[in-house]
Amino acid sequence: MTHQIADRRDIDFVLYEQFRIQEICQYEKYEDFNKKMFDMIISEARKLAIKEILPTFAESDKIGATFDKGKVHVPECFKKPYKLFVEGEWTAMTADPELGGQGLPAMIATAASEYLSGANYAFGLYGFEGHAAGRMIEVFGTKLQKELFLKKMYTGEWGGTMDLTEPGAGSDVGALTTTAVKNDDGTYSITGNKIFITSGEQDLTDNIIHPVLARIEGAPAGTKGISLFIVPKIWVNEDGSLGDDNDIVCTGIEEKMGIHGSATCALTYGSKGKCRGLLLGEENKGMKVMFQMMNDARLMVAAIGLNCAAASYGHSLGYARERFQGRALENALDQNAPQVNIIKHPDVRRMLLWMKAHVEAMRSMIYYGISLVEKEELATDEKDRAYHKGLLDFLTPILKAYCTDRGVEVCSEGLQVFGGYGYTKDFPVEQLLRDARIAPIYEGTNGIQAMDLLARKLGMKKGQVFMDLAGEITKTINQAREVPALGEMANNLESSLNRLTEVAQHIGLTAMSEKFKIAFAHACPFLDVMGDVVAAWMLLWRASIAVGPLAKLTKEKTGADLAAFLEKNKHAAFYQGQLTTAQYFIQSILPVTNGKMDAIKAMDSAVVDMPELSFGT
Amino acid sequence: MTHQIADRRDIDFVLYEQFRIQEICQYEKYEDFNKKMFDMIISEARKLAIKEILPTFAESDKIGATFDKGKVHVPECFKKPYKLFVEGEWTAMTADPELGGQGLPAMIATAASEYLSGANYAFGLYGFEGHAAGRMIEVFGTKLQKELFLKKMYTGEWGGTMDLTEPGAGSDVGALTTTAVKNDDGTYSITGNKIFITSGEQDLTDNIIHPVLARIEGAPAGTKGISLFIVPKIWVNEDGSLGDDNDIVCTGIEEKMGIHGSATCALTYGSKGKCRGLLLGEENKGMKVMFQMMNDARLMVAAIGLNCAAASYGHSLGYARERFQGRALENALDQNAPQVNIIKHPDVRRMLLWMKAHVEAMRSMIYYGISLVEKEELATDEKDRAYHKGLLDFLTPILKAYCTDRGVEVCSEGLQVFGGYGYTKDFPVEQLLRDARIAPIYEGTNGIQAMDLLARKLGMKKGQVFMDLAGEITKTINQAREVPALGEMANNLESSLNRLTEVAQHIGLTAMSEKFKIAFAHACPFLDVMGDVVAAWMLLWRASIAVGPLAKLTKEKTGADLAAFLEKNKHAAFYQGQLTTAQYFIQSILPVTNGKMDAIKAMDSAVVDMPELSFGT
Repeated sequence: MTHQIADRRDIDFVLYEQFRIQEICQYEKYEDFNKKMFDMIISEARKLAIKEILPTFAESDKIGATFDKGKVHVPECFKKPYKLFVEGEWTAMTADPELGGQGLPAMIATAASEYLSGANYAFGLYGFEGHAAGRMIEVFGTKLQKELFLKKMYTGEWGGTMDLTEPGAGSDVGALTTTAVKNDDGTYSITGNKIFITSGEQDLTDNIIHPVLARIEGAPAGTKGISLFIVPKIWVNEDGSLGDDNDIVCTGIEEKMGIHGSATCALTYGSKGKCRGLLLGEENKGMKVMFQMMNDARLMVAAIGLNCAAASYGHSLGYARERFQGRALENALDQNAPQVNIIKHPDVRRMLLWMKAHVEAMRSMIYYGISLVEKEELATDEKDRAYHKGLLDFLTPILKAYCTDRGVEVCSEGLQVFGGYGYTKDFPVEQLLRDARIAPIYEGTNGIQAMDLLARKLGMKKGQVFMDLAGEITKTINQAREVPALGEMANNLESSLNRLTEVAQHIGLTAMSEKFKIAFAHACPFLDVMGDVVAAWMLLWRASIAVGPLAKLTKEKTGADLAAFLEKNKHAAFYQGQLTTAQYFIQSILPVTNGKMDAIKAMDSAVVDMPELSFGT
Repeated sequence: MTHQIADRRDIDFVLYEQFRIQEICQYEKYEDFNKKMFDMIISEARKLAIKEILPTFAESDKIGATFDKGKVHVPECFKKPYKLFVEGEWTAMTADPELGGQGLPAMIATAASEYLSGANYAFGLYGFEGHAAGRMIEVFGTKLQKELFLKKMYTGEWGGTMDLTEPGAGSDVGALTTTAVKNDDGTYSITGNKIFITSGEQDLTDNIIHPVLARIEGAPAGTKGISLFIVPKIWVNEDGSLGDDNDIVCTGIEEKMGIHGSATCALTYGSKGKCRGLLLGEENKGMKVMFQMMNDARLMVAAIGLNCAAASYGHSLGYARERFQGRALENALDQNAPQVNIIKHPDVRRMLLWMKAHVEAMRSMIYYGISLVEKEELATDEKDRAYHKGLLDFLTPILKAYCTDRGVEVCSEGLQVFGGYGYTKDFPVEQLLRDARIAPIYEGTNGIQAMDLLARKLGMKKGQVFMDLAGEITKTINQAREVPALGEMANNLESSLNRLTEVAQHIGLTAMSEKFKIAFAHACPFLDVMGDVVAAWMLLWRASIAVGPLAKLTKEKTGADLAAFLEKNKHAAFYQGQLTTAQYFIQSILPVTNGKMDAIKAMDSAVVDMPELSFGT
């Protein structure tokens, strides 16, 4: 069986048919690109991923990153692909070419990274974090800071990290205790400990640039007293030359359930009193800077959910086609009937269609989020910009939590398709599940995302942003209703959207009442139903695009003729698949979503009422 | 933090208050027992589990069973606890003392094994399989077979296995190719290969008795031509002495996602033409014999789901109480407010209550299933026996699939409570999730269970068994309705039960119509809603028992007085917890179940209609 990552046909559909990314070339910023170039770039990424990164998948899991006397060794098999990754300029695809990037639209970069990261995201984490960390310097850094760091980070010559978490300050970032003291030369002496620092130490790059959150002596408590510092592993002199070792010690790496190839480091800054950092942005405004990165990172983590799920689906589908087991249901009692491939069994088809529906919905959701990033940036008037920014801010926690939760569930279902074999290391599906399981925790646990949605996002502009989103969904519903094949689906989604609007108002009001704790006890289910409705929207949107080309391809064919054609013509099969997938989700999943909404509307108080001692003694 | 297995208080509640197992001592069979003895036995099991088995949990995962030139070495740390396990006569607790058992009621054995198996079920698999395999010999064996094997197996001196699966015959057992040829001396020569044989080879016992499914030359195709053979690793002479090595070669063990301590073996029988077996039961009736074991085994696997979930809940609860992070929601904006333990956060409470509700529902479901085993056996008239057997047969696939699916989900939620720490090997929750993940596959995948429910069980006695179950549920509803605090819950469960009855009729009829494939595409969701309703029933049953003692304990207390009392008095807190947990499940989960039922009733055909090519190219 060939190794699977993402389905290129589906990516192309989302890029060119759903979001029509080729039209972005009308903007001056992208005038040097065209569809053919986009295709070529994605193909290059796919080639590198399949040829060089995918072969590291199982091996890096087996070997893992290793720690020895303060040094971290990444799996040896990462070295060559990392070199090729850097040479191919994949580190910062959307960055300005003058800074080492490719100047690509974000959505094309997302498609490329479906392969580059999807092949082994434990590897991808090393590859892309230089860009993520650099983005903060690009937006908030001084001219000198940009000159010193950006190009090195965007080209992948130096690595990057994000250093937030401390043993006592995880979800509660404001509780951190790392301190910064201003020196006479304008630098700050940094002292403290951080944990869970992805790529915090590694032997792939000559230097590592750590954005470190710390509290300047005397600053206010909580998040309002946090500043952000650029803390290089090796000091960088003002002329760009490398100086001394900057007194950052890696004290260990975590043994984890998955992503063994990714080094998760504990770092100590300034144990000899010699760790220096440069203030990035203003004093005490570190969280603002960090949020820039975190919002990008949340979309990236959503994509981890998608990538693992897409790979698991690809493998499961391949297995279901190749594995012969059991007889067709119509021959169940005929002991001499031949075995069929398991994709013939209704329950296996159900698992596959459930996986496919979620993979494709997640793909569209994430690309939609990325399209908002782009639209915000390209907007020429403030109103337009604010509109897209509002939608993006609103959707970010939903994308992060929904796609990572469903990503894990899809990977678990993928394992189930394989039966006993899925539990063994002979197939990649068990590793995909283990690798995916961190994503609901990374970059703000999904519980934190749900609180963000309820406490901050739902009330944005007095609820107008939610209504804007509902308006966008309604556009698709109205369009779909014009098509007879989609009418019932459109009506069902509309009915769920109306319920969702009621639920949103109800939970929003409750969150501002004395019963606010009860509202927050329903925050996660609320995010979940938001995600389901957005997923259904995306699938209906896809179906409404597919009807046109499908009708053209299948013209005049009916009955057995049509059925045979759909098993032969892959274009027609793809479009038919879009309709049937939407039908499955809207008719078999959305009723469950409606039930979840009923549960939220009931706003039961048991979770809050439960005496603490009643949980167990 | 102390290691957690199952909550003894809850086990006692289920044993003595919900199912009143002490009353079983009125039967002659159990007249030598009393509640005090039961308590002592469970305490002994718990002691052995905590002192000797629990310490092997992480180590056996790290080391794993190893394979070297046909030999399997179990983790060294298993050796001492296995010896103590055998000495304590834990192998076959329910078996006749004359055969090496303790003659215990099945429910007490279940409680003991919540500890013995719950502490590390990779260990428990070695411990209990001698009994499981021996049961078939006890029921179907000849006098000589019983004499030769039973006592050795029930005392744990010899191990046992069950050898069904072949590379091309997993879910489709009938496709097996292992052959048996009758010899002149009445034995059969066995030739073939099996895979996924738990404990198929190990170095804990002097001999291993393999029940092997094979086809006698010339037997019919499929399951109707399968016979079962007793195939010892070392031949056992008719005088009980050990003979020659029986030509069974272990060719390898699986590398798995979890339960690394349990050896999952590939076995080759008769590669030198010298493997002999004894026919167990009649020729071509092997499946009937094996089903005896499989039904027991399915309950045992359901318990794996429960055990892993219970441990994960215990750990998560402990962590949520000890871990300080974030401020109380009412102080969210006060940067100087102290950190609180995370059990104060509504979303963490939601996760914990979700876990608790499922753990306790699963416990009651499984113990109820076990009570039916016992009632079937103790029944004095045929009608009574058939009634309980019917309920047990009906519930077996539900228990197996529901408890293993939910078991995995509870373990995943437990990991989430720990945040980033949960993903590391510093805490046992990630291993519990990995260990639990095989259970939805073991002993018939959950998809197979759902087919069993729909194709065989739902129609038993023309649906009467389902109606009997509904009648049992209704008894609890009627009882609960008498209690004001439970009235609304009772009504809601009744409404869900009525829906379920409609859904059952609808799917049952569809399964017998030309649309049968569509029905089977909804078989898993149907099993799932059956499980939810049974879970809600169990929790309402628990609550209806708890109201009495709670009222006594809290007499005349109200408001803040009552609240303070419930945080101090652990008995009152426990009973209050039963009410609040039932409330949570019925008000916040059952509406989702209702939505799932709507989806089933809609009987959408997308899963069946989907062209095969539309799944992807």
